[in-house]
Amino acid sequence: MTKKLRVGVVGATGYTGEELVRLLCRHPQVELTYASGKESRDVKLQEIFPYLKNSVDLKCESFSFEEAAARCDFIFLSLPHTVSMSVAPAFLKAGKKVVDVSADYRLKDAKVYETFYKVKHKDQANLKRAVYGLPEVYREKIKKAILVANPGCYPTGAILGVLPGLRHRLWEGDDVTIDAKSGVTGAGRKAERSLNFSEVNESFKAYKLFEHPHAPEINQELSRISGRSVAVVFVPHLLPVNRGILSTIYVRLKKELTTEKLLSIYQKEYATEPFVKVYPSGALPELKHVVHTNFCDIGLRVNEERRLAVIVTAIDNLGKGAAGQAVQNMNIMCGFDETAGLA
Amino acid sequence: MTKKLRVGVVGATGYTGEELVRLLCRHPQVELTYASGKESRDVKLQEIFPYLKNSVDLKCESFSFEEAAARCDFIFLSLPHTVSMSVAPAFLKAGKKVVDVSADYRLKDAKVYETFYKVKHKDQANLKRAVYGLPEVYREKIKKAILVANPGCYPTGAILGVLPGLRHRLWEGDDVTIDAKSGVTGAGRKAERSLNFSEVNESFKAYKLFEHPHAPEINQELSRISGRSVAVVFVPHLLPVNRGILSTIYVRLKKELTTEKLLSIYQKEYATEPFVKVYPSGALPELKHVVHTNFCDIGLRVNEERRLAVIVTAIDNLGKGAAGQAVQNMNIMCGFDETAGLA
Amino acid sequence: MTKKLRVGVVGATGYTGEELVRLLCRHPQVELTYASGKESRDVKLQEIFPYLKNSVDLKCESFSFEEAAARCDFIFLSLPHTVSMSVAPAFLKAGKKVVDVSADYRLKDAKVYETFYKVKHKDQANLKRAVYGLPEVYREKIKKAILVANPGCYPTGAILGVLPGLRHRLWEGDDVTIDAKSGVTGAGRKAERSLNFSEVNESFKAYKLFEHPHAPEINQELSRISGRSVAVVFVPHLLPVNRGILSTIYVRLKKELTTEKLLSIYQKEYATEPFVKVYPSGALPELKHVVHTNFCDIGLRVNEERRLAVIVTAIDNLGKGAAGQAVQNMNIMCGFDETAGLA
Amino acid sequence: MTKKLRVGVVGATGYTGEELVRLLCRHPQVELTYASGKESRDVKLQEIFPYLKNSVDLKCESFSFEEAAARCDFIFLSLPHTVSMSVAPAFLKAGKKVVDVSADYRLKDAKVYETFYKVKHKDQANLKRAVYGLPEVYREKIKKAILVANPGCYPTGAILGVLPGLRHRLWEGDDVTIDAKSGVTGAGRKAERSLNFSEVNESFKAYKLFEHPHAPEINQELSRISGRSVAVVFVPHLLPVNRGILSTIYVRLKKELTTEKLLSIYQKEYATEPFVKVYPSGALPELKHVVHTNFCDIGLRVNEERRLAVIVTAIDNLGKGAAGQAVQNMNIMCGFDETAGLA
Repeated sequence: MTKKLRVGVVGATGYTGEELVRLLCRHPQVELTYASGKESRDVKLQEIFPYLKNSVDLKCESFSFEEAAARCDFIFLSLPHTVSMSVAPAFLKAGKKVVDVSADYRLKDAKVYETFYKVKHKDQANLKRAVYGLPEVYREKIKKAILVANPGCYPTGAILGVLPGLRHRLWEGDDVTIDAKSGVTGAGRKAERSLNFSEVNESFKAYKLFEHPHAPEINQELSRISGRSVAVVFVPHLLPVNRGILSTIYVRLKKELTTEKLLSIYQKEYATEPFVKVYPSGALPELKHVVHTNFCDIGLRVNEERRLAVIVTAIDNLGKGAAGQAVQNMNIMCGFDETAGLA
Repeated sequence: MTKKLRVGVVGATGYTGEELVRLLCRHPQVELTYASGKESRDVKLQEIFPYLKNSVDLKCESFSFEEAAARCDFIFLSLPHTVSMSVAPAFLKAGKKVVDVSADYRLKDAKVYETFYKVKHKDQANLKRAVYGLPEVYREKIKKAILVANPGCYPTGAILGVLPGLRHRLWEGDDVTIDAKSGVTGAGRKAERSLNFSEVNESFKAYKLFEHPHAPEINQELSRISGRSVAVVFVPHLLPVNRGILSTIYVRLKKELTTEKLLSIYQKEYATEPFVKVYPSGALPELKHVVHTNFCDIGLRVNEERRLAVIVTAIDNLGKGAAGQAVQNMNIMCGFDETAGLA
Repeated sequence: MTKKLRVGVVGATGYTGEELVRLLCRHPQVELTYASGKESRDVKLQEIFPYLKNSVDLKCESFSFEEAAARCDFIFLSLPHTVSMSVAPAFLKAGKKVVDVSADYRLKDAKVYETFYKVKHKDQANLKRAVYGLPEVYREKIKKAILVANPGCYPTGAILGVLPGLRHRLWEGDDVTIDAKSGVTGAGRKAERSLNFSEVNESFKAYKLFEHPHAPEINQELSRISGRSVAVVFVPHLLPVNRGILSTIYVRLKKELTTEKLLSIYQKEYATEPFVKVYPSGALPELKHVVHTNFCDIGLRVNEERRLAVIVTAIDNLGKGAAGQAVQNMNIMCGFDETAGLA
Repeated sequence: MTKKLRVGVVGATGYTGEELVRLLCRHPQVELTYASGKESRDVKLQEIFPYLKNSVDLKCESFSFEEAAARCDFIFLSLPHTVSMSVAPAFLKAGKKVVDVSADYRLKDAKVYETFYKVKHKDQANLKRAVYGLPEVYREKIKKAILVANPGCYPTGAILGVLPGLRHRLWEGDDVTIDAKSGVTGAGRKAERSLNFSEVNESFKAYKLFEHPHAPEINQELSRISGRSVAVVFVPHLLPVNRGILSTIYVRLKKELTTEKLLSIYQKEYATEPFVKVYPSGALPELKHVVHTNFCDIGLRVNEERRLAVIVTAIDNLGKGAAGQAVQNMNIMCGFDETAGLA
């Protein structure tokens, strides 16, 4: 039997960290050897998350670089934005491979980062070599990467929804409107009155109109894919559910297309993708089909008269939108089967 | 003391019927003298809806035109689409004023009705004289109406969101995209597996893409208001909440406008409207602000660079989207204070 | 027209304060002339709660005793436990009538208060003359009270559920088990990670087992009613809903009784009570029947073989469990119709 | 590599059937070779449940005994009560091992079955040899069983909560009160108005008071375990969540015991159980700790003064309460690791 990869999760008690732990515990080729969390008082992971009984026996410690580096070959950083970039360089220097699930290495232009995250970028050297971890676009680069910037949850659902049409130059101008709705775990596990159950339950709202930092991330990637400057209209909303992002995407078509024709382009584009599922004509994804999975489900319909397509994508914001995709990236970086631990 | 108006609710046990009963019971100028419902086994309304104790003492009967006509001066029809038009003519002939909350008298073109509701229209005579009951547009006509077609829930939130810009010819072309999200009472009180709690809860989906009958209703009204043919893109979604519709509306602007300028146009347009509330710059409506009210709350923001505005409207689908607006229409038709029973 | 009572709400921005404002705005005999709140930055109430448009035009100020006393005849204190007792004495001294919705004047024995609320009681003088504001038990005393301690939410549902049997000495020993389930607004509008939407939604738990301060409050009142020392078993649970408390109460019967016989005792006991509703045999209350009302609904069933009764009561924790009952108490204290503003 | 066990799920489209499919698809020692469902129109399982992409490629057929028997060695019957017993005998006769998740083989006394399920029992021969599939009680018998009656969801949480005290004769008389709260999937995937989202959401109720068929099942098992006739008080409630049952259990103690002492008895009793987790003193289970798992989590606290214990158990009604436990039973019946496919 081959030796298992020793992996650590720095920031194991947030929602994404918890999901990483859950996935890594059942991954056949890795062993979770290190976990740290802000609130740890030397408690065991299986006490914080009782369902881990039988699955793991590991302390959740206060973060120590030395401990983590000594006990792991591969590091997941599940830290708040702006904290990751102060921790990542040392791991990289020590020869560890890193997947960072924060936003710190996603925006290639440090100035855009500074505008949206309100802090100076402290690690531009590694920013340059970080690979944007969307396997459907960058699989070959991810194979060789030592630092992967795991995509944001909204960008994952948005980019996968427009990618095939962008590659085939089907969209008219940059007229992409993304009306996205996310479950509440997307906001993190924090004490905040606006996230109190009674504030969110039985309500619904748009938020951060034209100010959400995932908009420049979407624009960056759509521009790189298409080779021209794309600027989407992006409006996020807060859904009273725990998990999931559904994005309703509106694009204008350059030329006449039927629903079936556009679907067949999508199906071909994603034919070999293990975690993208294109629905048959007439069917649309729903959150319940994707939560607790690493899938991005896609359905669409063309309004021929109006030369318009509506594309609907659904992901689990903690799955394909965060921890699931992070594990998929690790699988690619380490030469494992891409679906290992994710089926 | 003046005599109270005797009102009846035909179809009192659906969600809209129930809300009508609730509102009418506390209306100072009316007396609820008749209620019928499909499932009635001669039970009292206050047994079906226990919270009506102290408020009403009335049987919920099997429908009888004679009974209803004998005991009421004013009739609310809260019946399924296609049933209302077989019942309304007799009431009108008997001199009763009628507010119909079904779709039967909303679409002026019977052919469009037949396309979307899959049945022949049986009462085109009254269809012609029915007034579309959106007070913010047709208040003067409603005053004189004997038959009011109460607007659909989605159209109410959509039309009020674009009306000021349409009147001031601010929108570019007919480029109006309406991404609408509705609570589950909008689907009615019926046994249907897809509406089962476990199917809807923790999920979210788009539905009836390009096929929802509220789309032609929105188009009809926006075309009448603007004097040209408008065809919106309308995508409804099912929210896991009981009540409320939030509509996110995307429009392109003909000319440069700031958020403040557009807001001031909206504020002026709705300054005297008792049930429309325009939010100050930076604020956006949320469902929890409007449920259990008759308000339509509106917030918006302009992206100057893109010459685009995003307008968000929120209503209670059972309030301003159905029963509340029906009572508002009755108030106008009968010369009552427009806010009576709705504060 | 008679002059309206000038009322103030100290602590208007919590859930109970908000509900008080909502109820007082539509009360025909009072005028809301003062409101204060911790987070006020001189904003208007109708901006904090947009649905109050048309209903009120009043600033929500930082608390000032002088302002409140000058502008009000009647004061609702909706403050955190331990804060009320530092504010109430001055109002009472100034001749204002006060309803306190906190726990500060409920427990007659200051030592019990100090055990459960972990602070010294600072106003034992007023504690003595405070009347426990459960109208079904203390209506005559409330009529003459100047300080009413509004009952806790759990105690209201629990006491009303066992009162008739207690008065008729039907229960065996003190064997009363109360398994209570409350919506999340019962925990107040605060930033707390354990109240975060994603922590509460899709979950359920018991909490404060044998440690909840409402247990001694229930014991105190059941003991006073029965004239002997009663100590219930009380287990509260947190329900993933906004509003409502359902209490399932288990009692042993001294002698044989049928469901019908016990129901008829309950029906007689509560026959003239405007806000208690006893269900017919076979029916049980549900939260949806009582939320947004001031009712306590009661259903029960006897297991004759086991000499046991299960009694189920339902209230809105913000209605009969807090703000609604506070208004009911004001109505009684001021000689208004007891149901005014609450129908 | 050893050949995999060929398993079939009869009734694969209900909630329990779906969960069985999900679990079996990732079980290392079985191959899902047959699935039938009422609504099947020869669609594939992965089209009904899109998240099964990558996991299975199998048609969901109309039920045919011949097909199922030809293609499977092991059968899960996930059929409505009263249907299972007309299908099971043929499989048993054909030498297949069967786990029945319906109630048809749980109640040893056919008359009790007939009282609660309102139909005659048609297969008393197999009823006699069916083993009640609660591994914590009947593991040795399950090893040799060819027909296992998978326990009801409520009985699983209830029995595991009182078992250790019952075995150690700690409870006074038969005074066991079980206040149980279940998520909505427990009611099955059916069209029923009372299960409509808007009827269940934001509400809560007790139901089937003294009439639920799980009460005699609990009584039967507690009586067998204790060797005397036990009759519990059992009140089920409907929780507005998808999954999970939390049971709050009240027992009187024969003699003085501390919380710590009682906990240590529970911990010893369940020390080697892979799917029971006893919490340390001060901690209580919550539904979110057990949903999507096969665990039964248990916490408790003794009130020494009252000689009373409150025991709280939590399970996933589709996990340990149905499909998970069914797979655990298969593991035991087939000599697999008991946790295979369930970690």
